[in-house]
Order: sequence, then structure tokens, then C-alpha cells
Amino acid sequence: MKSLTKYLTFNVPERMDFVHITPDVADAVRESGVQEGLCLVNAMHITASVFINDDEPGLHRDYKRWLENLAPFDASPETYHHNRTGEDNADAHHKHQIMEREVVVAITNGRLDFGPWERIFYGEFDGRRPKRVLIKIIGE
Amino acid sequence: MKSLTKYLTFNVPERMDFVHITPDVADAVRESGVQEGLCLVNAMHITASVFINDDEPGLHRDYKRWLENLAPFDASPETYHHNRTGEDNADAHHKHQIMEREVVVAITNGRLDFGPWERIFYGEFDGRRPKRVLIKIIGE
Amino acid sequence: MKSLTKYLTFNVPERMDFVHITPDVADAVRESGVQEGLCLVNAMHITASVFINDDEPGLHRDYKRWLENLAPFDASPETYHHNRTGEDNADAHHKHQIMEREVVVAITNGRLDFGPWERIFYGEFDGRRPKRVLIKIIGE
Repeated sequence: MKSLTKYLTFNVPERMDFVHITPDVADAVRESGVQEGLCLVNAMHITASVFINDDEPGLHRDYKRWLENLAPFDASPETYHHNRTGEDNADAHHKHQIMEREVVVAITNGRLDFGPWERIFYGEFDGRRPKRVLIKIIGE
Repeated sequence: MKSLTKYLTFNVPERMDFVHITPDVADAVRESGVQEGLCLVNAMHITASVFINDDEPGLHRDYKRWLENLAPFDASPETYHHNRTGEDNADAHHKHQIMEREVVVAITNGRLDFGPWERIFYGEFDGRRPKRVLIKIIGE
Repeated sequence: MKSLTKYLTFNVPERMDFVHITPDVADAVRESGVQEGLCLVNAMHITASVFINDDEPGLHRDYKRWLENLAPFDASPETYHHNRTGEDNADAHHKHQIMEREVVVAITNGRLDFGPWERIFYGEFDGRRPKRVLIKIIGE
């Protein structure tokens, strides 16, 4: 069995934004030499996500509005108990649950085995500081 | 390490519907000969899902209503920016995020290691055309 | 390839509550002897979740309120078709979809490869009876 572990760091200038990371993951797959296996990609922070969707800016605008509607930013400790800890990012923990922590992607013939429009994104919900993504590949 | 890759194709006649695919996945597990391992099942399209839940038609009706409420179909480019691309399926991309792209299931003693009511479903949110599901099995 | 399968049982006295299970999973990783691999942790019931988030009681109160808002408990068969089966837990099946069935965690150098605040929780949405969680580890 082969394995590879890689960490990416992002410092997103906005509170919420999405970063296309498919090329980084594809590089890791090549580097691993794995022909048949699984590739886990996960946010290492619980106020961020890794998800697979369309690389289309209009959709990303829609997601931001939708997430803000489902779990609005509100620094007040009256709205979110979590913000009584001194944090202001309770909303980001909720957005994480909608958009998900991780994806697991098949590796077939040495490549990410993707449908036509699948692309991997890092989803930041509490940016403006460095945060990490983990890539773990196992297979043969 | 053994591995198996399989693709299923679905052409769901409705815009939104759920298809029970546990038997297809169980067949793939048997075919793989894997006794201990992991089985990834994912939608290859970002307007569809693979999820695990109850094989109960009433629940599926509830899901459809709930998803339509959380992310309503609306072809208008005013409601969803994504639909300015000429698509009308922005809602389906949102439903995908709620219902999830993939499941990872344990294989134990050569079988899907399931609780009593766990069943795998393909969730279609923009049907009426052929779309694919990937099954990837690794283990020994 | 090494593998380990372990089942945890929870009997949560409340209808909805969250149980911190990172120590149980870390024990299983040690027991497996796996240095590099993947660890799947999933609810075996479709009215419960396994998720990764912050071990902070205020956030957990926020989640409970938020989930109750997104998918309210209502035993009436008028509100949820699923409850026409005699069940009263349709809401729990919906909460499961928001909070997710499973997590997949990397194992690196024999340990769960976690960011600073990542902790694993069992999320119960229809408690007061014994329910199981599966841990499956594969790697080398």
C-alpha cells in the first residue's frame, strides 16, 4: 500500500469565499504514484469546508447568499450562544455543516475519477487568517 | 490490496426522485472479493446525490417537500445567478449540498457493514437525462 | 493491509444530544496499529449522525435550536408523511441529512490527523434507546 499526506494553507482575504483546489489535489495524486485508491480532502478547521461542485462564479454567489440565509453572520452573543466565548464565528460552524468537512474521491488509472463538472473547492467561512486543508491518499 | 471500479447510469424520468441502489452496491462488493475494506459510492454529477437513509416512500415525499422549501426550483436568472448561464438547475446544485455527494461504507466479512435500516439511494435533482454513479472499493 | 472494525453503543437519555467520541476513536486507531491510513466513523442508524466540530457547549445549544428550526419535531402524520408509518421521528431523518452520517479521518504516524479544534461527535436525534456507531480503520 502506498500513501501520501499533504497540507495546503489558505489565507482567504474575505470572511466567506471559495477557492478552486482541484489542481493541488491532482498534483498530490500524481506525486503519490497511486493508480487505484482513495483520496480524502478535508478542511482541518471547523469553520471551513471542502466540497465538490461547479466552477461557476454565479453559483458561488448563490451559495453565499443561501448560506447567509440559512446561518446568518451575527456576532451577538444573544443570537448564538457560541459567541459568548468571545468568538464571533458561530455562523461559520453552521455553514460548515451545510457545505461539509470533506470529500472522498476515487483514484482510477492514476487520476481523480471525476464526472464532467466535478471540481474541488475550499470553502472559507471565517477567513483572514491562515487555515489548513489535508490531502490523504492511500492505494496501490 | 484489491480494488474495483464500477459505474452505474441512471436516467430518471422526473426532475427530482430517489432510486434505491443498495443491491447494485452489494453486487459490486461481492464481485470485488474484498473481505475487509471501504466502499465509496458517489454521484458523478453535481446536481445529484448519493445518500443513506430509510427505504420508506413517505419519508421520500417529505424529503422532496423539504428540499423544495430549502432550495426551491426557479428557472429565473433573477432568483439564482447560476441560471444566467442558460441553465435552469441552480436549485439542484443547492439540493446536492444538503443531501451530499457521497457515502463511504465499511466492508466487513465481505459484506456492506450496515445498521438495520441503512439503504443507499441515488438522489436525482435534475433528471431526464443519463447521469452516472461511481462505486470504488478498496481492501483485502 | 491492516484493518480494524469496532462498534460503539450509545443510549442517549434525551431525544437530541451530542456525545464526544474522539477518545473512543483514538483508542481504536492505537489498537489497529495502523500508521498511515483512513478511519471511517459512521452512525449505523439513520436518525443519528457522526460529525466533526467544536467541543463547546454553547455551540451545541446553537445546533439544537438551528436543527429544530430547519427540521422541527412534529409527531403528526399531517406534517410528515413518514409519521404515517406509526413512527414519530421523521424530523430525525431530516436532521441526519444536515449533520451527516459519517466522517473519514486521515491517520498519519499512527494518530488521527486533526486540526487544532477538530473533535468527533455522535449526534443523536431520536434517543432513549441503544444505537450503534461503526469505526472502520484500514491502512498499514
